[in-house]
Amino acid sequence: MCQVTKGTLYGLSLGPGDPGLITRRSWELLNSGRGWCYPVRALGSDSYAHEIVRRSGCAEPQRMVPLHFPMIHDQARLAGYWLAAAEQVREILCSGEDLLFLVEGDASTYSTFSHLQRTLLALDPTLAVEVVAGVTSYSAAAAATGRSLADSDDTIAILPAGYGVATVEALLPHFDTLVLLKVKPLIEDLIDLIERLQLQEGSYFVERVGTPEERQIHDVATLRGTTPNYLSLMIIHNPERTRTLQHRGCRQKSD
Amino acid sequence: MCQVTKGTLYGLSLGPGDPGLITRRSWELLNSGRGWCYPVRALGSDSYAHEIVRRSGCAEPQRMVPLHFPMIHDQARLAGYWLAAAEQVREILCSGEDLLFLVEGDASTYSTFSHLQRTLLALDPTLAVEVVAGVTSYSAAAAATGRSLADSDDTIAILPAGYGVATVEALLPHFDTLVLLKVKPLIEDLIDLIERLQLQEGSYFVERVGTPEERQIHDVATLRGTTPNYLSLMIIHNPERTRTLQHRGCRQKSD
Repeated sequence: MCQVTKGTLYGLSLGPGDPGLITRRSWELLNSGRGWCYPVRALGSDSYAHEIVRRSGCAEPQRMVPLHFPMIHDQARLAGYWLAAAEQVREILCSGEDLLFLVEGDASTYSTFSHLQRTLLALDPTLAVEVVAGVTSYSAAAAATGRSLADSDDTIAILPAGYGVATVEALLPHFDTLVLLKVKPLIEDLIDLIERLQLQEGSYFVERVGTPEERQIHDVATLRGTTPNYLSLMIIHNPERTRTLQHRGCRQKSD
Repeated sequence: MCQVTKGTLYGLSLGPGDPGLITRRSWELLNSGRGWCYPVRALGSDSYAHEIVRRSGCAEPQRMVPLHFPMIHDQARLAGYWLAAAEQVREILCSGEDLLFLVEGDASTYSTFSHLQRTLLALDPTLAVEVVAGVTSYSAAAAATGRSLADSDDTIAILPAGYGVATVEALLPHFDTLVLLKVKPLIEDLIDLIERLQLQEGSYFVERVGTPEERQIHDVATLRGTTPNYLSLMIIHNPERTRTLQHRGCRQKSD
Protein backbone atom coordinates (compact mmCIF):
# COMPACT_ATOMS: atom_id res chain seq x y z
CA MET A 1 0.00 0.00 0.00
CA CYS A 2 1.13 3.51 -0.75
CA GLN A 3 1.95 5.88 2.12
CA VAL A 4 1.76 9.10 0.06
CA THR A 5 -0.82 10.56 -2.32
CA LYS A 6 -0.44 8.38 -5.35
CA GLY A 7 0.44 9.79 -8.74
CA THR A 8 -1.75 9.59 -11.83
CA LEU A 9 -0.93 7.60 -14.93
CA TYR A 10 -1.79 9.48 -18.13
CA GLY A 11 -2.46 7.67 -21.40
CA LEU A 12 -0.97 10.43 -23.47
CA SER A 13 -2.05 10.32 -27.12
CA LEU A 14 0.39 11.96 -29.51
CA GLY A 15 -1.41 11.56 -32.83
CA PRO A 16 0.00 9.42 -35.64
CA GLY A 17 3.32 11.11 -36.38
CA ASP A 18 3.15 14.84 -37.10
CA PRO A 19 4.06 16.71 -33.88
CA GLY A 20 1.55 19.36 -35.02
CA LEU A 21 -1.21 16.84 -34.34
CA ILE A 22 -0.36 16.59 -30.65
CA THR A 23 -3.24 18.13 -28.71
CA ARG A 24 -2.85 21.17 -26.48
CA ARG A 25 -3.62 19.04 -23.43
CA SER A 26 -0.96 16.44 -24.26
CA TRP A 27 1.50 19.21 -25.07
CA GLU A 28 0.90 20.90 -21.74
CA LEU A 29 1.44 17.62 -19.90
CA LEU A 30 4.58 16.84 -21.93
CA ASN A 31 6.04 20.18 -20.85
CA SER A 32 4.98 19.86 -17.21
CA GLY A 33 8.11 18.11 -15.99
CA ARG A 34 6.21 14.86 -15.32
CA GLY A 35 8.11 11.69 -16.15
CA TRP A 36 7.56 9.81 -19.41
CA CYS A 37 7.25 6.11 -19.99
CA TYR A 38 6.99 4.47 -23.40
CA PRO A 39 7.09 0.98 -24.86
CA VAL A 40 10.29 -0.27 -26.49
CA ARG A 41 10.72 -3.55 -28.36
CA ALA A 42 14.17 -4.11 -26.94
CA LEU A 43 16.01 -2.43 -24.13
CA GLY A 44 18.15 0.30 -25.66
CA SER A 45 15.89 0.70 -28.71
CA ASP A 46 13.52 3.61 -29.23
CA SER A 47 9.75 3.82 -29.51
CA TYR A 48 7.66 5.31 -32.29
CA ALA A 49 5.79 7.43 -29.74
CA HIS A 50 9.01 8.76 -28.28
CA GLU A 51 10.21 9.67 -31.80
CA ILE A 52 7.12 11.81 -32.36
CA VAL A 53 7.86 13.79 -29.21
CA ARG A 54 11.52 14.09 -30.18
CA ARG A 55 10.52 15.58 -33.53
CA SER A 56 8.35 18.08 -31.63
CA GLY A 57 11.41 19.57 -29.95
CA CYS A 58 9.91 19.11 -26.49
CA ALA A 59 12.56 18.91 -23.77
CA GLU A 60 12.80 15.58 -21.96
CA PRO A 61 11.96 15.34 -18.28
CA GLN A 62 14.37 13.90 -15.74
CA ARG A 63 12.36 10.70 -15.35
CA MET A 64 12.42 8.56 -18.51
CA VAL A 65 11.10 5.00 -18.18
CA PRO A 66 11.35 2.72 -21.20
CA LEU A 67 9.03 -0.27 -20.75
CA HIS A 68 10.12 -3.46 -22.43
CA PHE A 69 7.52 -5.19 -24.63
CA PRO A 70 9.23 -7.53 -27.08
CA MET A 71 7.51 -8.42 -30.38
CA ILE A 72 6.51 -11.93 -29.41
CA HIS A 73 3.22 -13.70 -29.99
CA ASP A 74 3.32 -16.00 -26.95
CA GLN A 75 0.51 -14.48 -24.89
CA ALA A 76 1.67 -16.04 -21.61
CA ARG A 77 5.21 -14.68 -21.97
CA LEU A 78 3.88 -11.32 -23.10
CA ALA A 79 1.65 -11.15 -20.02
CA GLY A 80 4.82 -11.44 -17.94
CA TYR A 81 6.26 -8.37 -19.63
CA TRP A 82 3.02 -6.46 -19.07
CA LEU A 83 3.09 -7.38 -15.42
CA ALA A 84 6.72 -6.30 -15.06
CA ALA A 85 5.92 -2.97 -16.76
CA ALA A 86 2.85 -2.42 -14.59
CA GLU A 87 4.90 -3.13 -11.44
CA GLN A 88 7.51 -0.61 -12.57
CA VAL A 89 4.84 2.02 -13.22
CA ARG A 90 3.02 1.27 -9.97
CA GLU A 91 6.15 1.76 -7.95
CA ILE A 92 6.65 5.25 -9.40
CA LEU A 93 2.98 6.20 -8.97
CA CYS A 94 3.08 4.99 -5.39
CA SER A 95 6.02 7.26 -4.69
CA GLY A 96 3.63 10.13 -5.48
CA GLU A 97 4.93 10.90 -8.97
CA ASP A 98 2.70 11.16 -12.05
CA LEU A 99 3.73 9.37 -15.23
CA LEU A 100 2.87 10.01 -18.87
CA PHE A 101 2.60 6.91 -21.04
CA LEU A 102 3.45 8.10 -24.56
CA VAL A 103 1.21 6.58 -27.22
CA GLU A 104 1.19 7.19 -30.98
CA GLY A 105 -2.27 7.81 -32.44
CA ASP A 106 -5.14 7.63 -29.97
CA ALA A 107 -4.62 5.86 -26.63
CA SER A 108 -8.07 4.17 -26.86
CA THR A 109 -7.70 2.85 -30.37
CA TYR A 110 -5.48 -0.19 -31.05
CA SER A 111 -3.04 0.96 -28.44
CA THR A 112 -0.73 -0.82 -26.03
CA PHE A 113 -1.90 1.59 -23.36
CA SER A 114 -5.11 -0.34 -22.66
CA HIS A 115 -3.09 -3.47 -21.77
CA LEU A 116 -0.96 -1.53 -19.34
CA GLN A 117 -4.00 0.18 -17.85
CA ARG A 118 -5.80 -3.13 -17.27
CA THR A 119 -2.74 -4.79 -15.77
CA LEU A 120 -2.02 -1.83 -13.54
CA LEU A 121 -5.59 -1.54 -12.25
CA ALA A 122 -5.64 -5.28 -11.58
CA LEU A 123 -2.63 -4.75 -9.31
CA ASP A 124 -4.13 -1.71 -7.61
CA PRO A 125 -7.68 -0.61 -8.47
CA THR A 126 -7.25 2.62 -6.48
CA LEU A 127 -4.71 4.07 -8.91
CA ALA A 128 -5.88 7.06 -10.97
CA VAL A 129 -5.65 6.84 -14.75
CA GLU A 130 -6.50 9.61 -17.19
CA VAL A 131 -6.64 9.14 -20.94
CA VAL A 132 -5.97 12.12 -23.21
CA ALA A 133 -7.57 11.35 -26.58
CA GLY A 134 -5.64 11.87 -29.81
CA VAL A 135 -5.84 11.93 -33.59
CA THR A 136 -5.92 8.50 -35.25
CA SER A 137 -3.79 7.45 -38.21
CA TYR A 138 -6.87 7.09 -40.42
CA SER A 139 -8.14 10.61 -39.68
CA ALA A 140 -4.69 11.94 -40.55
CA ALA A 141 -4.53 9.72 -43.65
CA ALA A 142 -7.92 11.02 -44.85
CA ALA A 143 -6.75 14.60 -44.28
CA ALA A 144 -3.55 13.88 -46.20
CA THR A 145 -5.38 12.42 -49.19
CA GLY A 146 -7.89 15.28 -49.16
CA ARG A 147 -10.81 12.87 -49.38
CA SER A 148 -13.19 12.65 -46.46
CA LEU A 149 -13.41 9.40 -44.54
CA ALA A 150 -17.20 9.57 -44.15
CA ASP A 151 -20.02 11.88 -45.19
CA SER A 152 -23.08 12.42 -43.07
CA ASP A 153 -24.95 9.14 -43.62
CA ASP A 154 -21.95 6.95 -44.32
CA THR A 155 -20.89 3.83 -42.50
CA ILE A 156 -17.27 3.00 -41.62
CA ALA A 157 -15.60 -0.28 -40.69
CA ILE A 158 -12.11 -0.43 -39.24
CA LEU A 159 -10.24 -3.70 -38.99
CA PRO A 160 -6.78 -5.21 -39.13
CA ALA A 161 -6.30 -6.43 -42.70
CA GLY A 162 -5.16 -9.76 -41.30
CA TYR A 163 -8.73 -10.99 -41.16
CA GLY A 164 -8.26 -11.53 -44.86
CA VAL A 165 -9.82 -10.58 -48.15
CA ALA A 166 -12.84 -12.85 -47.68
CA THR A 167 -13.77 -10.88 -44.55
CA VAL A 168 -13.09 -7.58 -46.29
CA GLU A 169 -15.22 -8.62 -49.25
CA ALA A 170 -18.06 -9.79 -46.99
CA LEU A 171 -18.13 -6.45 -45.16
CA LEU A 172 -17.91 -4.25 -48.25
CA PRO A 173 -21.63 -4.23 -49.16
CA HIS A 174 -22.43 -2.74 -45.75
CA PHE A 175 -19.85 0.05 -45.63
CA ASP A 176 -19.08 3.23 -47.50
CA THR A 177 -15.57 3.23 -46.11
CA LEU A 178 -13.29 0.43 -45.00
CA VAL A 179 -10.15 1.24 -43.08
CA LEU A 180 -7.68 -1.64 -43.16
CA LEU A 181 -4.82 -1.53 -40.71
CA LYS A 182 -1.53 -3.45 -40.82
CA VAL A 183 -1.93 -4.20 -44.51
CA LYS A 184 1.67 -5.31 -45.01
CA PRO A 185 1.21 -9.11 -45.03
CA LEU A 186 -1.94 -8.99 -47.20
CA ILE A 187 -1.05 -6.26 -49.67
CA GLU A 188 -1.03 -8.43 -52.81
CA ASP A 189 -4.38 -10.04 -51.94
CA LEU A 190 -5.90 -6.63 -51.23
CA ILE A 191 -4.72 -5.24 -54.56
CA ASP A 192 -6.25 -8.28 -56.30
CA LEU A 193 -9.54 -7.63 -54.52
CA ILE A 194 -9.54 -3.89 -55.31
CA GLU A 195 -8.89 -4.60 -58.98
CA ARG A 196 -11.45 -7.39 -59.21
CA LEU A 197 -14.16 -5.18 -57.64
CA GLN A 198 -12.96 -2.09 -59.56
CA LEU A 199 -12.48 -0.06 -56.41
CA GLN A 200 -9.24 1.61 -57.56
CA GLU A 201 -10.70 5.11 -57.73
CA GLY A 202 -11.66 5.08 -54.05
CA SER A 203 -8.64 3.24 -52.67
CA TYR A 204 -5.71 4.88 -50.94
CA PHE A 205 -2.60 3.49 -49.30
CA VAL A 206 -0.89 5.63 -46.66
CA GLU A 207 2.29 4.70 -44.82
CA ARG A 208 3.71 6.38 -41.69
CA VAL A 209 1.35 9.32 -42.02
CA GLY A 210 2.67 12.62 -40.70
CA THR A 211 6.28 11.51 -40.45
CA PRO A 212 9.11 12.64 -42.73
CA GLU A 213 8.84 9.18 -44.36
CA GLU A 214 5.12 9.45 -45.17
CA ARG A 215 4.06 7.80 -48.44
CA GLN A 216 0.62 8.18 -50.03
CA ILE A 217 -0.24 5.99 -52.97
CA HIS A 218 -3.49 6.25 -54.88
CA ASP A 219 -2.65 3.82 -57.70
CA VAL A 220 -2.33 0.86 -55.37
CA ALA A 221 -1.26 -1.49 -58.18
CA THR A 222 2.15 0.18 -58.03
CA LEU A 223 2.63 -1.45 -54.62
CA ARG A 224 2.85 -4.94 -56.15
CA GLY A 225 6.09 -6.63 -55.29
CA THR A 226 6.97 -4.06 -52.62
CA THR A 227 7.03 -4.46 -48.84
CA PRO A 228 5.08 -1.75 -47.04
CA ASN A 229 6.08 -0.55 -43.61
CA TYR A 230 4.34 -2.06 -40.60
CA LEU A 231 2.63 1.32 -40.00
CA SER A 232 0.61 1.43 -43.17
CA LEU A 233 -3.10 1.40 -43.84
CA MET A 234 -5.54 1.36 -46.69
CA ILE A 235 -8.76 3.31 -47.01
CA ILE A 236 -11.26 1.82 -49.45
CA HIS A 237 -14.30 3.86 -50.43
CA ASN A 238 -17.10 1.72 -51.77
CA PRO A 239 -19.51 3.55 -54.07
CA GLU A 240 -21.69 0.43 -54.26
CA ARG A 241 -22.65 0.21 -50.60
CA THR A 242 -26.14 -1.20 -50.19
CA ARG A 243 -28.22 1.74 -49.01
CA THR A 244 -31.05 1.23 -46.60
CA LEU A 245 -33.51 3.84 -45.44
CA GLN A 246 -32.92 5.51 -42.13
CA HIS A 247 -35.57 5.36 -39.45
CA ARG A 248 -37.91 7.74 -37.66
CA GLY A 249 -36.49 11.17 -37.21
CA CYS A 250 -33.34 10.32 -39.08
CA ARG A 251 -32.51 11.70 -42.45
CA GLN A 252 -33.05 9.40 -45.40
CA LYS A 253 -30.09 8.74 -47.62
CA SER A 254 -30.69 10.50 -50.93
CA ASP A 255 -29.30 8.22 -53.59
CA MET B 1 -10.15 34.30 -62.47
CA CYS B 2 -8.06 35.53 -59.57
CA GLN B 3 -5.46 38.23 -60.22
CA VAL B 4 -3.46 37.67 -56.99
CA THR B 5 -1.96 34.62 -55.33
CA LYS B 6 -5.01 32.84 -54.02
CA GLY B 7 -5.44 32.06 -50.35
CA THR B 8 -5.73 28.56 -48.89
CA LEU B 9 -8.85 27.16 -47.29
CA TYR B 10 -8.06 25.16 -44.14
CA GLY B 11 -10.43 22.49 -42.85
CA LEU B 12 -9.58 23.17 -39.24
CA SER B 13 -10.50 20.33 -36.90
CA LEU B 14 -11.10 21.39 -33.31
CA GLY B 15 -11.83 18.08 -31.64
CA PRO B 16 -15.22 17.28 -30.13
CA GLY B 17 -15.59 19.95 -27.46
CA ASP B 18 -12.73 20.23 -24.98
CA PRO B 19 -10.43 23.07 -26.13
CA GLY B 20 -7.55 20.99 -24.73
CA LEU B 21 -8.12 18.54 -27.59
CA ILE B 22 -7.39 21.16 -30.25
CA THR B 23 -4.15 20.16 -31.96
CA ARG B 24 -1.04 22.32 -31.89
CA ARG B 25 -1.32 22.87 -35.65
CA SER B 26 -4.94 24.04 -35.42
CA TRP B 27 -4.07 26.21 -32.44
CA GLU B 28 -1.22 27.86 -34.31
CA LEU B 29 -3.49 28.59 -37.27
CA LEU B 30 -6.26 29.92 -35.01
CA ASN B 31 -3.80 32.38 -33.53
CA SER B 32 -2.25 33.39 -36.85
CA GLY B 33 -4.66 36.25 -37.60
CA ARG B 34 -6.23 34.34 -40.54
CA GLY B 35 -9.98 34.80 -40.91
CA TRP B 36 -12.44 32.20 -39.60
CA CYS B 37 -15.54 30.85 -41.25
CA TYR B 38 -17.99 28.47 -39.62
CA PRO B 39 -21.41 27.02 -40.31
CA VAL B 40 -24.47 28.50 -38.56
CA ARG B 41 -28.01 27.16 -38.72
CA ALA B 42 -29.50 30.63 -38.87
CA LEU B 43 -27.92 34.01 -39.47
CA GLY B 44 -27.20 35.52 -36.08
CA SER B 45 -26.98 32.13 -34.34
CA ASP B 46 -23.73 30.51 -33.24
CA SER B 47 -21.96 27.33 -34.27
CA TYR B 48 -20.80 24.47 -32.10
CA ALA B 49 -17.31 24.74 -33.60
CA HIS B 50 -17.13 28.44 -32.84
CA GLU B 51 -18.20 27.74 -29.24
CA ILE B 52 -15.26 25.36 -28.78
CA VAL B 53 -12.84 28.06 -29.88
CA ARG B 54 -14.57 30.60 -27.65
CA ARG B 55 -14.11 28.32 -24.65
CA SER B 56 -10.41 28.07 -25.54
CA GLY B 57 -9.95 31.80 -24.94
CA CYS B 58 -8.41 32.32 -28.38
CA ALA B 59 -8.78 35.91 -29.62
CA GLU B 60 -10.99 36.35 -32.70
CA PRO B 61 -9.47 37.59 -35.94
CA GLN B 62 -10.82 40.59 -37.79
CA ARG B 63 -12.38 38.49 -40.53
CA MET B 64 -15.30 36.38 -39.22
CA VAL B 65 -17.51 34.73 -41.83
CA PRO B 66 -20.59 32.82 -40.66
CA LEU B 67 -21.83 30.53 -43.42
CA HIS B 68 -25.53 29.82 -43.44
CA PHE B 69 -26.59 26.17 -43.60
CA PRO B 70 -30.15 25.74 -42.36
CA MET B 71 -31.25 22.38 -40.89
CA ILE B 72 -33.35 21.32 -43.86
CA HIS B 73 -33.51 17.94 -45.54
CA ASP B 74 -34.37 19.14 -49.04
CA GLN B 75 -31.12 18.30 -50.84
CA ALA B 76 -31.76 20.64 -53.77
CA ARG B 77 -32.37 23.65 -51.52
CA LEU B 78 -29.41 22.69 -49.34
CA ALA B 79 -27.19 22.54 -52.42
CA GLY B 80 -28.11 26.17 -53.05
CA TYR B 81 -26.83 27.10 -49.59
CA TRP B 82 -23.62 25.18 -50.16
CA LEU B 83 -23.09 26.97 -53.43
CA ALA B 84 -23.70 30.36 -51.83
CA ALA B 85 -21.23 29.52 -49.04
CA ALA B 86 -18.62 28.29 -51.51
CA GLU B 87 -19.00 31.49 -53.56
CA GLN B 88 -18.51 33.57 -50.43
CA VAL B 89 -15.39 31.60 -49.48
CA ARG B 90 -14.03 31.68 -53.02
CA GLU B 91 -14.28 35.44 -53.19
CA ILE B 92 -12.18 35.81 -50.04
CA LEU B 93 -9.59 33.24 -51.18
CA CYS B 94 -9.36 34.99 -54.55
CA SER B 95 -8.56 38.25 -52.80
CA GLY B 96 -5.42 36.50 -51.53
CA GLU B 97 -6.62 35.84 -47.96
CA ASP B 98 -6.51 32.44 -46.28
CA LEU B 99 -9.59 31.20 -44.43
CA LEU B 100 -9.97 28.68 -41.61
CA PHE B 101 -13.18 26.66 -41.69
CA LEU B 102 -13.84 25.72 -38.05
CA VAL B 103 -15.05 22.13 -37.64
CA GLU B 104 -15.91 20.26 -34.47
CA GLY B 105 -14.38 16.79 -34.26
CA ASP B 106 -12.35 15.71 -37.27
CA ALA B 107 -12.82 17.54 -40.58
CA SER B 108 -12.74 14.26 -42.55
CA THR B 109 -15.27 12.39 -40.44
CA TYR B 110 -18.99 13.19 -40.74
CA SER B 111 -18.19 16.83 -41.23
CA THR B 112 -19.82 19.64 -43.19
CA PHE B 113 -16.37 20.60 -44.38
CA SER B 114 -16.27 17.93 -47.08
CA HIS B 115 -19.42 19.40 -48.69
CA LEU B 116 -17.90 22.84 -48.76
CA GLN B 117 -14.61 21.51 -50.09
CA ARG B 118 -16.29 19.64 -52.94
CA THR B 119 -18.50 22.57 -53.88
CA LEU B 120 -15.58 24.99 -53.76
CA LEU B 121 -13.29 22.80 -55.87
CA ALA B 122 -16.08 22.32 -58.40
CA LEU B 123 -16.18 26.12 -58.77
CA ASP B 124 -12.41 26.45 -59.00
CA PRO B 125 -10.23 23.33 -59.02
CA THR B 126 -7.07 25.43 -58.68
CA LEU B 127 -7.90 26.53 -55.12
CA ALA B 128 -5.66 25.12 -52.38
CA VAL B 129 -7.30 23.24 -49.52
CA GLU B 130 -5.51 21.83 -46.48
CA VAL B 131 -7.18 19.62 -43.92
CA VAL B 132 -5.86 19.58 -40.34
CA ALA B 133 -6.99 16.32 -38.75
CA GLY B 134 -8.60 16.28 -35.31
CA VAL B 135 -9.81 14.13 -32.46
CA THR B 136 -13.18 12.45 -33.06
CA SER B 137 -16.05 12.38 -30.58
CA TYR B 138 -15.78 8.62 -30.19
CA SER B 139 -12.06 8.71 -29.35
CA ALA B 140 -12.82 11.34 -26.72
CA ALA B 141 -15.83 9.36 -25.47
CA ALA B 142 -13.70 6.23 -25.08
CA ALA B 143 -11.07 8.24 -23.18
CA ALA B 144 -13.78 9.69 -20.94
CA THR B 145 -15.24 6.28 -20.10
CA GLY B 146 -11.76 4.85 -19.50
CA ARG B 147 -12.50 1.84 -21.67
CA SER B 148 -10.57 1.40 -24.89
CA LEU B 149 -12.45 1.54 -28.16
CA ALA B 150 -10.48 -1.31 -29.72
CA ASP B 151 -7.72 -3.67 -28.71
CA SER B 152 -5.11 -4.95 -31.11
CA ASP B 153 -7.16 -7.45 -33.12
CA ASP B 154 -10.58 -5.85 -32.70
CA THR B 155 -12.94 -4.67 -35.38
CA ILE B 156 -14.90 -1.41 -35.20
CA ALA B 157 -18.01 -0.26 -37.06
CA ILE B 158 -19.17 3.35 -36.99
CA LEU B 159 -22.59 4.33 -38.26
CA PRO B 160 -25.43 6.75 -37.70
CA ALA B 161 -27.93 4.98 -35.43
CA GLY B 162 -30.67 5.97 -37.86
CA TYR B 163 -30.03 2.84 -39.92
CA GLY B 164 -32.03 1.12 -37.25
CA VAL B 165 -31.71 -1.70 -34.78
CA ALA B 166 -32.06 -4.39 -37.44
CA THR B 167 -28.90 -3.06 -39.11
CA VAL B 168 -27.14 -2.73 -35.76
CA GLU B 169 -28.08 -6.28 -34.83
CA ALA B 170 -26.97 -7.64 -38.20
CA LEU B 171 -23.55 -6.00 -37.85
CA LEU B 172 -22.96 -7.01 -34.22
CA PRO B 173 -21.61 -10.54 -34.86
CA HIS B 174 -18.80 -9.06 -36.95
CA PHE B 175 -17.61 -6.29 -34.65
CA ASP B 176 -16.03 -5.99 -31.23
CA THR B 177 -17.11 -2.37 -31.02
CA LEU B 178 -20.03 -0.51 -32.56
CA VAL B 179 -20.06 3.27 -32.45
CA LEU B 180 -23.55 4.62 -33.03
CA LEU B 181 -23.85 8.30 -33.83
CA LYS B 182 -26.94 10.52 -33.60
CA VAL B 183 -28.71 8.07 -31.31
CA LYS B 184 -31.41 10.52 -30.22
CA PRO B 185 -34.33 9.30 -32.37
CA LEU B 186 -33.61 5.60 -31.80
CA ILE B 187 -32.64 5.59 -28.15
CA GLU B 188 -35.55 3.46 -26.87
CA ASP B 189 -35.07 0.85 -29.60
CA LEU B 190 -31.34 0.72 -28.88
CA ILE B 191 -31.93 0.19 -25.17
CA ASP B 192 -34.36 -2.63 -26.00
CA LEU B 193 -31.71 -4.23 -28.20
CA ILE B 194 -28.94 -3.85 -25.62
CA GLU B 195 -31.13 -5.44 -22.93
CA ARG B 196 -32.35 -8.25 -25.19
CA LEU B 197 -28.76 -9.16 -26.16
CA GLN B 198 -27.46 -8.53 -22.63
CA LEU B 199 -24.89 -6.03 -23.80
CA GLN B 200 -25.37 -3.65 -20.87
CA GLU B 201 -21.93 -4.18 -19.37
CA GLY B 202 -20.19 -3.01 -22.54
CA SER B 203 -22.56 -0.19 -23.50
CA TYR B 204 -21.89 3.50 -22.90
CA PHE B 205 -23.85 6.61 -23.77
CA VAL B 206 -21.89 9.86 -24.04
CA GLU B 207 -23.41 13.25 -24.78
CA ARG B 208 -21.55 16.43 -25.77
CA VAL B 209 -18.20 14.96 -24.81
CA GLY B 210 -15.61 17.44 -23.57
CA THR B 211 -18.05 20.32 -23.05
CA PRO B 212 -19.21 21.64 -19.68
CA GLU B 213 -22.51 19.79 -20.37
CA GLU B 214 -20.90 16.37 -20.96
CA ARG B 215 -22.95 13.42 -19.74
CA GLN B 216 -21.70 9.84 -19.55
CA ILE B 217 -24.15 7.10 -18.78
CA HIS B 218 -23.18 3.48 -18.37
CA ASP B 219 -26.54 2.15 -17.19
CA VAL B 220 -28.28 3.02 -20.45
CA ALA B 221 -31.70 1.89 -19.16
CA THR B 222 -31.81 5.12 -17.15
CA LEU B 223 -32.12 6.98 -20.46
CA ARG B 224 -35.63 5.60 -21.08
CA GLY B 225 -38.16 8.37 -21.46
CA THR B 226 -35.48 11.04 -21.80
CA THR B 227 -34.50 13.03 -24.89
CA PRO B 228 -30.75 12.98 -25.51
CA ASN B 229 -28.97 15.88 -27.13
CA TYR B 230 -28.34 15.76 -30.89
CA LEU B 231 -24.60 15.38 -30.15
CA SER B 232 -24.74 12.06 -28.39
CA LEU B 233 -23.37 8.67 -29.24
CA MET B 234 -23.32 5.13 -27.96
CA ILE B 235 -20.41 2.74 -27.84
CA ILE B 236 -21.38 -0.92 -27.68
CA HIS B 237 -18.71 -3.51 -26.93
CA ASN B 238 -19.69 -6.96 -28.06
CA PRO B 239 -17.94 -9.78 -26.18
CA GLU B 240 -19.59 -12.31 -28.50
CA ARG B 241 -18.03 -11.21 -31.74
CA THR B 242 -17.46 -14.13 -34.06
CA ARG B 243 -13.69 -14.58 -34.14
CA THR B 244 -11.99 -15.75 -37.27
CA LEU B 245 -8.34 -16.60 -37.65
CA GLN B 246 -6.04 -14.01 -39.06
CA HIS B 247 -4.02 -14.77 -42.14
CA ARG B 248 -0.39 -15.22 -43.10
CA GLY B 249 1.99 -13.06 -41.17
CA CYS B 250 -0.79 -11.69 -38.98
CA ARG B 251 -1.22 -12.53 -35.37
CA GLN B 252 -3.93 -15.03 -34.52
CA LYS B 253 -6.57 -13.92 -32.09
CA SER B 254 -6.04 -15.77 -28.84
CA ASP B 255 -9.49 -16.50 -27.46
